[in-house]
Amino acid sequence: MTQRIDKALIADENAKLLSDLNEDYQALGNKLARNDINIEEVTAKAEAFQIAVPSWGTGTGGTRFARFPGEGEPRNIFEKLEDSAVINDLSQCTERVSPHFPWDKVDDFTELKQFSDELNLSWDSINSNTFQDQPGQEHSFKYGSLSNTSAASRELAIAHNLDCIEWGKALGSKTLTVWVGDGSNHPGQQHFQSAFERYLESMKTIYAGLPSDWELHIEHKMFEPAFYSTIIQDWGSNILAAMELGPQAKSLVDLGHHAPNVNIEMIVSRLIQFKKLGGFHFNDSKYGDDDLDSGSLHPYQQFLIFNELVDAQYRNQEGFNPNYMLDQSHNVTDPIESLMNSAASVQRSYVSALLVDREKLSEYQQNNDALMASNTLKNAFNTDVSPILAMARLRKGGAIDPIATYRKASYRSAVAAKRPSSGGNGSGIV
Amino acid sequence: MTQRIDKALIADENAKLLSDLNEDYQALGNKLARNDINIEEVTAKAEAFQIAVPSWGTGTGGTRFARFPGEGEPRNIFEKLEDSAVINDLSQCTERVSPHFPWDKVDDFTELKQFSDELNLSWDSINSNTFQDQPGQEHSFKYGSLSNTSAASRELAIAHNLDCIEWGKALGSKTLTVWVGDGSNHPGQQHFQSAFERYLESMKTIYAGLPSDWELHIEHKMFEPAFYSTIIQDWGSNILAAMELGPQAKSLVDLGHHAPNVNIEMIVSRLIQFKKLGGFHFNDSKYGDDDLDSGSLHPYQQFLIFNELVDAQYRNQEGFNPNYMLDQSHNVTDPIESLMNSAASVQRSYVSALLVDREKLSEYQQNNDALMASNTLKNAFNTDVSPILAMARLRKGGAIDPIATYRKASYRSAVAAKRPSSGGNGSGIV
Amino acid sequence: MTQRIDKALIADENAKLLSDLNEDYQALGNKLARNDINIEEVTAKAEAFQIAVPSWGTGTGGTRFARFPGEGEPRNIFEKLEDSAVINDLSQCTERVSPHFPWDKVDDFTELKQFSDELNLSWDSINSNTFQDQPGQEHSFKYGSLSNTSAASRELAIAHNLDCIEWGKALGSKTLTVWVGDGSNHPGQQHFQSAFERYLESMKTIYAGLPSDWELHIEHKMFEPAFYSTIIQDWGSNILAAMELGPQAKSLVDLGHHAPNVNIEMIVSRLIQFKKLGGFHFNDSKYGDDDLDSGSLHPYQQFLIFNELVDAQYRNQEGFNPNYMLDQSHNVTDPIESLMNSAASVQRSYVSALLVDREKLSEYQQNNDALMASNTLKNAFNTDVSPILAMARLRKGGAIDPIATYRKASYRSAVAAKRPSSGGNGSGIV
Amino acid sequence: MTQRIDKALIADENAKLLSDLNEDYQALGNKLARNDINIEEVTAKAEAFQIAVPSWGTGTGGTRFARFPGEGEPRNIFEKLEDSAVINDLSQCTERVSPHFPWDKVDDFTELKQFSDELNLSWDSINSNTFQDQPGQEHSFKYGSLSNTSAASRELAIAHNLDCIEWGKALGSKTLTVWVGDGSNHPGQQHFQSAFERYLESMKTIYAGLPSDWELHIEHKMFEPAFYSTIIQDWGSNILAAMELGPQAKSLVDLGHHAPNVNIEMIVSRLIQFKKLGGFHFNDSKYGDDDLDSGSLHPYQQFLIFNELVDAQYRNQEGFNPNYMLDQSHNVTDPIESLMNSAASVQRSYVSALLVDREKLSEYQQNNDALMASNTLKNAFNTDVSPILAMARLRKGGAIDPIATYRKASYRSAVAAKRPSSGGNGSGIV
Repeated sequence: MTQRIDKALIADENAKLLSDLNEDYQALGNKLARNDINIEEVTAKAEAFQIAVPSWGTGTGGTRFARFPGEGEPRNIFEKLEDSAVINDLSQCTERVSPHFPWDKVDDFTELKQFSDELNLSWDSINSNTFQDQPGQEHSFKYGSLSNTSAASRELAIAHNLDCIEWGKALGSKTLTVWVGDGSNHPGQQHFQSAFERYLESMKTIYAGLPSDWELHIEHKMFEPAFYSTIIQDWGSNILAAMELGPQAKSLVDLGHHAPNVNIEMIVSRLIQFKKLGGFHFNDSKYGDDDLDSGSLHPYQQFLIFNELVDAQYRNQEGFNPNYMLDQSHNVTDPIESLMNSAASVQRSYVSALLVDREKLSEYQQNNDALMASNTLKNAFNTDVSPILAMARLRKGGAIDPIATYRKASYRSAVAAKRPSSGGNGSGIV
Repeated sequence: MTQRIDKALIADENAKLLSDLNEDYQALGNKLARNDINIEEVTAKAEAFQIAVPSWGTGTGGTRFARFPGEGEPRNIFEKLEDSAVINDLSQCTERVSPHFPWDKVDDFTELKQFSDELNLSWDSINSNTFQDQPGQEHSFKYGSLSNTSAASRELAIAHNLDCIEWGKALGSKTLTVWVGDGSNHPGQQHFQSAFERYLESMKTIYAGLPSDWELHIEHKMFEPAFYSTIIQDWGSNILAAMELGPQAKSLVDLGHHAPNVNIEMIVSRLIQFKKLGGFHFNDSKYGDDDLDSGSLHPYQQFLIFNELVDAQYRNQEGFNPNYMLDQSHNVTDPIESLMNSAASVQRSYVSALLVDREKLSEYQQNNDALMASNTLKNAFNTDVSPILAMARLRKGGAIDPIATYRKASYRSAVAAKRPSSGGNGSGIV
Repeated sequence: MTQRIDKALIADENAKLLSDLNEDYQALGNKLARNDINIEEVTAKAEAFQIAVPSWGTGTGGTRFARFPGEGEPRNIFEKLEDSAVINDLSQCTERVSPHFPWDKVDDFTELKQFSDELNLSWDSINSNTFQDQPGQEHSFKYGSLSNTSAASRELAIAHNLDCIEWGKALGSKTLTVWVGDGSNHPGQQHFQSAFERYLESMKTIYAGLPSDWELHIEHKMFEPAFYSTIIQDWGSNILAAMELGPQAKSLVDLGHHAPNVNIEMIVSRLIQFKKLGGFHFNDSKYGDDDLDSGSLHPYQQFLIFNELVDAQYRNQEGFNPNYMLDQSHNVTDPIESLMNSAASVQRSYVSALLVDREKLSEYQQNNDALMASNTLKNAFNTDVSPILAMARLRKGGAIDPIATYRKASYRSAVAAKRPSSGGNGSGIV
Repeated sequence: MTQRIDKALIADENAKLLSDLNEDYQALGNKLARNDINIEEVTAKAEAFQIAVPSWGTGTGGTRFARFPGEGEPRNIFEKLEDSAVINDLSQCTERVSPHFPWDKVDDFTELKQFSDELNLSWDSINSNTFQDQPGQEHSFKYGSLSNTSAASRELAIAHNLDCIEWGKALGSKTLTVWVGDGSNHPGQQHFQSAFERYLESMKTIYAGLPSDWELHIEHKMFEPAFYSTIIQDWGSNILAAMELGPQAKSLVDLGHHAPNVNIEMIVSRLIQFKKLGGFHFNDSKYGDDDLDSGSLHPYQQFLIFNELVDAQYRNQEGFNPNYMLDQSHNVTDPIESLMNSAASVQRSYVSALLVDREKLSEYQQNNDALMASNTLKNAFNTDVSPILAMARLRKGGAIDPIATYRKASYRSAVAAKRPSSGGNGSGIV
């Protein structure tokens, strides 16, 4: 039987915090009203906000040096869904789960779909995996997958992606996300152009297998696992590939996949402008693809990205409908806690961006009043929207304070009893 | 006669905003009280906060490509003080001005001191300049100053620093800040060790000339104007130099002078631990020494730095007493506006850091509860302390909204009439 | 009368070195012959190699902090050409000069063309300048040029570029290079998409004015003079702009204009693949747009770039014909020396890349023999091709040792006598 | 029985290449003689050069995403030694092996020492490992080892290091290298100063257990496995820790452990100057701690580092005696091939640095002749010293062409037959 958080417990915990929340919400509402912002409209948008949870994020992450597993880790996609349901029950903004194949492959996808339906969860983008070899795999991806010099390896990688589409159909997904580790570690190892041509040819075959109402999202990354060159190393190669493939192909932005100092919000704007923004993998990073909790280090950058997204909505930019997903590696925290916290962090950026006075901003921009334009953004960012976030959760049946409520429920120890550790202390993530 | 902002205007502007401020301040006070924080104690600390203004920051900055001067720029140190007084009158946290010599050199320092006294301004750290040649200078700094292979150039640079101390004494300053551009553009151009030895020898002579109640602050910088190597390239070389010189020598941190991705708040902690934190040059940067407005890009980083500073105060760390100063280049804004805005931004970080529940934080740290430790900081950061900042200004006689009040006063156009442009559209800063 | 290097002096200097050169050339020829490489064929290609000199590079560069002028600096385009002729006479691979307008604007372009003809120099790409305001300029570029919110400023910038085309026609050039400093220093200052749309609209007007046998080269740059965002910040925005404009628009790569760690040779490959590589600004850098001497810090990177270029030639890639130019700031060296040295450094990378055994490399790549592929490149790079470079110069009438010969000729002191210093020790370059 | 390369095979392969080598060596000797360099003296120094091999480097590396094992991988320290002997037999500059505990722990260290003696291998620095938990480990290193808030975890980590010293004594080593992964992933997770104080306290206990003729080497690293802060994040924290501990403590430089753009050769100079340079982990990197083959990407940087090292020898810098070691992750190559190739690459940098004319360089430096100083280094670097490297190997009984000879010997397939794969395709390194 599925482990859940008792609704009565949530209600009890909320009851203790309700009076303070109401007071803070009222004060914020008054303040916003002075700027002609109706807090109820903002809260309604906060309630409608959704960000997907990655199935693999519910397990403890690791590095190439070590993985220190936590207790009660999910051992399969059903237990990952169980954890995801807890996240959504408390956060009320993570209805969708994004699976990774073959990690989450099951024999009976109907059973899996039924299980997720029961948990009120649906399925986000399908992630294919051709950066590892699977036991018994005939043709290795050691030297690449979709761009491998070996036709046999390429065909295997293509076939896996086409399988992913089939599995995704069974689950009701509408997107395939393709990230490959293809690249090289030595100058000369790969002929850059030939490799990219092979990649494009493979992707065209996958694209041809895409249902007409699906999108294909291409994810770029500067480095790792390849350390000299990576086939889709930046948004430039990404958008060129998406343009070569066709209108259903779009670019996906992972915040940790760029060169140092790069202006990511500007890349987001460019992708919006050229109608190629497919979606996001949210996380935070200081050095490389650190996969830290979203907004934990650079909350203003996350806000500036949402400033672009909300601006595109405000302008009714044609065809604008990106996917939002978390993609983090939880090495030292309880993954459920980090995912709840991060979902709220991204939601905070969205709500803060809604507060930007876009008419004034536009006027300041037109007049090159850099200081007041900057302050217009900062005023929105500095406004503490916590009461709106909490009220949105409360009204949808979630927790005012998801972390405290989760801890109170002792969920982790409860599942730990039901999920004996596999014993492995191995290095690296799985 | 000195141009000032009319106190009646400030009062009028404040009157319009007072009711809203009181409401917000009250709401925030209630909220803080729930966490056992007395808002009045915080406001009192906010009122006591001071950050110095750089004299050169009152002029429009530039790049090596161009400088686009604004109207009414100050033409000498007296006019720079006039502008600084406006900044302090409205901001009420910038009583001190940091001069740069020979840029601000005058014939009669007594007259200058009297003028600053009349404006209720005092003098912060003295900045020497040996990165430019002055007209008619006999021995060039083209190949370095304190580390030049030429003894004559080194002696000139030493003498200038000793002069700076004398001028500083006349002004009542207690600190000399030494930043040099010495370095190299080509591998091999300089013998690293010999150059550093010459630098240390020169600095020892300057140190010997330091009054016993003065400090000598060493400023490191990764690159620019030298593009291959810089003599004090990072905090490592900085602290080693400070240790070689003695207890009156300390390290100064400019936020834009580090390698990409470096954890600056950790460097601050190390300098505190080894009793060598002299002070700060606050600004913000995305790429290099961009000298942007403080906190305009990375407000959370600025908060994390103040988290270290407030923690040192909280622990009563022995000998902890760093200087705070702004050091920015205002290329596209009115320098007075940017300096007021930036002073408030740094003050905001300080006040936010005061809200951190340090007992709880310490407990989370002890228990390796990474998520709650992180959230403890975030809760303080997310709290909008704007009402405290505004109240602190108001109570000291400043403006609730310094930018709006400044614009209302039409100060810039008033001084523009009195300060005809020199006509130069030259490139680079002066 | 034009100052030149006496041909007899060159001959005398060469005579001293000839015997050693012949011995080294013979030894290298024997070694290459063992690998079925005919040294004479390589030397012939080395002789045919050309790289343009930037007119502004003949003056001493500077930073925003200072400029330390050298003696005998050229004061106008005629003196810059005089210096350029010396560079070419000794180096024999720099027949073309690239002018910068309005810096090099003259009243009589026929006279200028005649002067360059007499020096056996021709004209490379024309560089427009809309990153500075000129004295008396009616509409400022302070807030941008081609993307300014002000139509008047945009029109001024467009008109200047169209003027540049006319001046270029008079000089026999076939390319216009457009680099703009447009961007922003504050989040919110600029609406990214609107600004890029304005830029594209302006560029379309310029493109429409392009003769049918000209190319328009777009230069991207990550930052400086704008420090938060830059309109053409990377090759992604660059190639998209070039694709929007049409087949005569191509992308130009300056080696110092990228984010840290970026794989530039891969960007070169992508631009070749999409038929959009227009040319290069060669220099070297460690931190930002340092404009150091080409190959002085990263000679292997420069070789890897030429590995891509020679590979494109080897594959007879359609439409492949990039421009090569130096673009450096000489702050601590004699510009003539640096330009001669750098031209030879780039030529060295080209010649080394010619030695790569491309059949073997292709085989190693096909078999994923990463180590031998890497060693194939390294073997070519490690081969000392100095004798080929010297022999190529000698056979064309240049100097075996350009630096030594130049110093022997005392050219600098000779022109110093004829070019009195303007006295300015100003900061920044002009 | 130990698998070796047949000496007759080496001789046969050398015989084929001998005539060409002699010709190249003669030509190079002549060329060097013109500059008053006796090639025989250089070759003698090349023969004396030694760089240690890391035991773990003989296995295939991996990333957190995947590990693609090669065939015939060594399964224990005895087989790693077997492979190391092959590397040394062919390369003749890798007599020492550096072990990693507990990975290489054995029950009988006398047996292990006897085995290495038989292979003519000795033992370099001992590496302790407290960045992983071992099966059954009572107190976890998940939240740190030497700096853990838990005294029990710290004591365990200290005890392991003291064990390492004992094991090292048994093997005849004289150095303990301490690298820890301690750090944090979230702002606030760790109190920087308290953590560093705990680290220093733990290290003092280890230092106290050090025999008087041993050194303790501290290794800094910017990030990974911790992604927000690392306890010894740079050379600054490293040298301060080494100074706190005492004269037997020194700093170790891994080339891949620095922030982007950092000038590593200057850090090397600083450590030499302050008598704290303990040694190196050589590898190459483009993005982070990529652990690529030494010199494969930045050969000139590696040369510049050796320029500092040879300069210190030339100046007879007191107490200068650093350890050299390779530390690489071989993900796509045969580890034996990469280690042979990399040892030769580092040796090349050393030999090239020996060719620098230090008297002239010093003169150019004194006169600020940046261009000729730079060219003095470049002339040495551009000289192809391959014949010296090959001759040094030949004379000591190694292979003129180690890679070709190794492949000819079919060593890998021979050991593959004797070392059946464990079957694991796991992710991450072990």
